[in-house]
Amino acid sequence: MVGYMNAESWGKTLETGKACFWSRSRKKLWVKGETSGNVQIVKEIYVDCDQDAILLKIEQVGGAACHTGYRSCFFRRLEKGKLIAKGQRVFDPKEVYGE
Amino acid sequence: MVGYMNAESWGKTLETGKACFWSRSRKKLWVKGETSGNVQIVKEIYVDCDQDAILLKIEQVGGAACHTGYRSCFFRRLEKGKLIAKGQRVFDPKEVYGE
Repeated sequence: MVGYMNAESWGKTLETGKACFWSRSRKKLWVKGETSGNVQIVKEIYVDCDQDAILLKIEQVGGAACHTGYRSCFFRRLEKGKLIAKGQRVFDPKEVYGE
Repeated sequence: MVGYMNAESWGKTLETGKACFWSRSRKKLWVKGETSGNVQIVKEIYVDCDQDAILLKIEQVGGAACHTGYRSCFFRRLEKGKLIAKGQRVFDPKEVYGE
């Protein structure tokens, strides 16, 4: 998954050891998994060359990072101009988030 | 690596099969590897759940994506508050880009 971090979410990530982002749509701190329980336990942190991107290696509680129930948000591959879902859902979003 | 794409760079990527980005600092199309020769041959394209991020699986010509000569731009790991370089340089940036 890709998420946005500001200074507050970065600090919270370091402090708690769980991935925290900043929701630009909701304008609030977003502890990943706060609703679903599928938090991300941070194992390693890498910083890129120009220091404007962070790569978190995490343990994904529940096995799926994506709100659609797939392991990865990148669950669709472009094939001949169409997006084709790959892999299986780990959970049913209706059961986790409600209808 | 992480790069920004606009519609033009996305179209160019699909058309050429090589990763193209949009340089927001230089305000121009950026064919990755145009200077170093280390182009990225696109093998697979994944699109994320909310369709605002793209994951390219690529063959990295020259073995290094980063202008620093490391395989990945994420070559430094945070360890006890310090960034520690991991792995070895694939090339010497001075030889590729000049002094």
